[in-house]
Amino acid sequence: MTFDTLAQDLAMENGVGNATNREFLATQHAADIAQFLTEHDADIDWRVLDLLELQRQAEVLGYLDREVQVELAKSAPRARLAAIVTEMDSDDRADLFNALSEEEQEALLPALAQAEREDIRRLAGYKEGTAGAIMTSDYAVLTPDITARQALDKLRLEAPDKETIYRAYVIDPERKLIGSVRLQDLILVAPATRIEKVMERNTLAVSVDEDQESVAQKIARYDRLALPVVDADGRIVGIVTHDDAIDVITQEATEDFHKSGTVRGLGESVRDAGIFILYRARVAWLVLLVFGNIFSGAGIAYFEDTIASHLALLFFLPLLIASGGNAGAQAATLMVRAIATGDVRTADWGKMLGRETLVAGLLGLTMALAIYGIGVWRGGPEIAVVVSVSMIIIVLVGSLIGMTLPFILTRFRMDPATASGPLVTSIADAVGVLIYFAIATAWLL
Amino acid sequence: MTFDTLAQDLAMENGVGNATNREFLATQHAADIAQFLTEHDADIDWRVLDLLELQRQAEVLGYLDREVQVELAKSAPRARLAAIVTEMDSDDRADLFNALSEEEQEALLPALAQAEREDIRRLAGYKEGTAGAIMTSDYAVLTPDITARQALDKLRLEAPDKETIYRAYVIDPERKLIGSVRLQDLILVAPATRIEKVMERNTLAVSVDEDQESVAQKIARYDRLALPVVDADGRIVGIVTHDDAIDVITQEATEDFHKSGTVRGLGESVRDAGIFILYRARVAWLVLLVFGNIFSGAGIAYFEDTIASHLALLFFLPLLIASGGNAGAQAATLMVRAIATGDVRTADWGKMLGRETLVAGLLGLTMALAIYGIGVWRGGPEIAVVVSVSMIIIVLVGSLIGMTLPFILTRFRMDPATASGPLVTSIADAVGVLIYFAIATAWLL
Repeated sequence: MTFDTLAQDLAMENGVGNATNREFLATQHAADIAQFLTEHDADIDWRVLDLLELQRQAEVLGYLDREVQVELAKSAPRARLAAIVTEMDSDDRADLFNALSEEEQEALLPALAQAEREDIRRLAGYKEGTAGAIMTSDYAVLTPDITARQALDKLRLEAPDKETIYRAYVIDPERKLIGSVRLQDLILVAPATRIEKVMERNTLAVSVDEDQESVAQKIARYDRLALPVVDADGRIVGIVTHDDAIDVITQEATEDFHKSGTVRGLGESVRDAGIFILYRARVAWLVLLVFGNIFSGAGIAYFEDTIASHLALLFFLPLLIASGGNAGAQAATLMVRAIATGDVRTADWGKMLGRETLVAGLLGLTMALAIYGIGVWRGGPEIAVVVSVSMIIIVLVGSLIGMTLPFILTRFRMDPATASGPLVTSIADAVGVLIYFAIATAWLL
Repeated sequence: MTFDTLAQDLAMENGVGNATNREFLATQHAADIAQFLTEHDADIDWRVLDLLELQRQAEVLGYLDREVQVELAKSAPRARLAAIVTEMDSDDRADLFNALSEEEQEALLPALAQAEREDIRRLAGYKEGTAGAIMTSDYAVLTPDITARQALDKLRLEAPDKETIYRAYVIDPERKLIGSVRLQDLILVAPATRIEKVMERNTLAVSVDEDQESVAQKIARYDRLALPVVDADGRIVGIVTHDDAIDVITQEATEDFHKSGTVRGLGESVRDAGIFILYRARVAWLVLLVFGNIFSGAGIAYFEDTIASHLALLFFLPLLIASGGNAGAQAATLMVRAIATGDVRTADWGKMLGRETLVAGLLGLTMALAIYGIGVWRGGPEIAVVVSVSMIIIVLVGSLIGMTLPFILTRFRMDPATASGPLVTSIADAVGVLIYFAIATAWLL
């Protein structure tokens, strides 16, 4: 039995609730079932979900992309949806709720129990991109006065409803976070030991409005399974878990990568995005860059006399302006990623500038040597000198523009990832045209 | 007390082993102490490490970047280094060992106990980039015949030496992996229950030579804390943990990002890399791209007559060729990242081609409209038509090149990330020059 034979079964008969299919699905990971649902239509999806227990249905739903979730939610009777939603992890549930239209939200809420309703309202209220928006409220808490044995009994009871019980959080009567304790320490110490004796005080925590990228970086940096989230008064309101941290890191890397190619936020998979969504993600930057390149054109037009008297200069035009753009793109790429991973801070600009000048100078020199011979061959010694000198200056200036732009964007609270790729290339191109023909005019006329 | 005052203390007096510093360090996370060491010299670093217990020294060392580790290892007496290395996690230890020179390795090995020596030799033997190279051998195993109580006792005893005991792996007499069991299930069931009754059979596992990126993706996809690694005979040889998965994902994203800007593998932080290392990472591609752009130059030279009789064409040259390059870079960026995250497979090329043709056609049309007016103004109606028609074709062709290149590279087992950015831009540029002047020549002459 495989997913392929399941698909055949579903296509052939109407009621697929046979024992073989049920057994097969019971052995599969929820993530794989979710993948199968993504590749099929909503009516098939519901027939597959029917073969699972309610708790598993909720688990599978949690692994689906947002759009597929919404698609399924729309086609389900309200009571059925409410039953599954009740079983979902609180963070997945709040995300799904946020993705529904206002009417769908209003239809769903009354079908839920009071506790779930309040939990959804509370979690859905946090701003997107913050710790509050990705945290779950399914965490375990303990009080400092109970014993390890009592704590274990409590965790044992609560385990099925919690995302993780490997670390429990210790709170005072006002729910203020005062420490945390690992499950492994609870089973290690004598059963009569009080929690306040084993707990880790000053436990790491993040604020509810902290940026999700910064939270994910902390989980990665400190190798934590989860980090507690506290409000302005130090009260625990949720936890962010390691699997959400991986999702955030992957998502932010994808966004940065897209921005580096001047593609705007897509919000969904390239494979599933519609034509118009893809068009919209690309058109604004392309048109903007067209007008950016008009400066290069104007530069060329300005030097028309120089060009008309030395048409051989044109041969080297693409090569010279592309070299400035390429060197700039390299410099920008290095800085953008270093800033994104926290490797380099804005204060480091001075240090980086000195090194970039040296590296770019060496690169320009190498490329000038590489191009000199071709210059002599295509245009004679005079043109060769113009081309070589231009190359050094263009690579140097392009690189400095490329490394500086990410710092400037960060300073003005814009995303530096935009600066690598086409944007920096266009700017360096225009500057390259001016440098080349200015040097040529001065030398040859 | 802060790290700043600690630095002042270290700069002032010689013996800094005072109680305040010791206490301060005891409250700090190992990752933060490692950060402090990275920012100071080896002699200061050793004085700080002296204030920590041996186990903590090893933990801090594990958080350091490879180069800093090697720096410290070189400046330590052999016996001292051996003592710390013995306490390190087995994966960190093998990585450090691999980074040492052959002589340093030979000097270190005799100072270690037999068990550590064999463990290092075994782990160091796996190829870089595979599951074997990032796995740790500090995992907990159980046999199926013992009870939950016996299992808990065993885990309790072993906990300090294991990276995680939250999941233990169940093996048969030949060490073949037959299942796994969560700590939380062990404390949940009746103490007399046998492991074979609670264990999860068909537990997820990866092969020792599986690519590290694929292992990390599985940990992310299935939300696991760790995945067991098995050899060709199904015997467990290690585990890869979630924190290593995050490191791999971050590292691979950085590499892809660098390649998209035609920067070769740097192997270390941009902040700390030397001038020559940065030069070497950039020069090869820059020079290669120069020669790539010679095709554009040759294209222009070939159409010199057309240009000489219509110099106004030059104004639109940078704009038209950049548009093809930019549209190509966008298309490539979307495909490269979608392939890297497993969103799109090579088999999807056909489907993607159809959609890209539609999207690129729309984009080309939009840009042709945007540029038509400027064409009339700068060159008259005839040139405006040439420029607009060229724009549509150039954007379409550039986009198709950009989306196809990543698939071709993947097919030939090369890294598609190279295809976004400057490489695709250069190719699209050259094609753009030919299209523009071919249309201009046909229309105007």
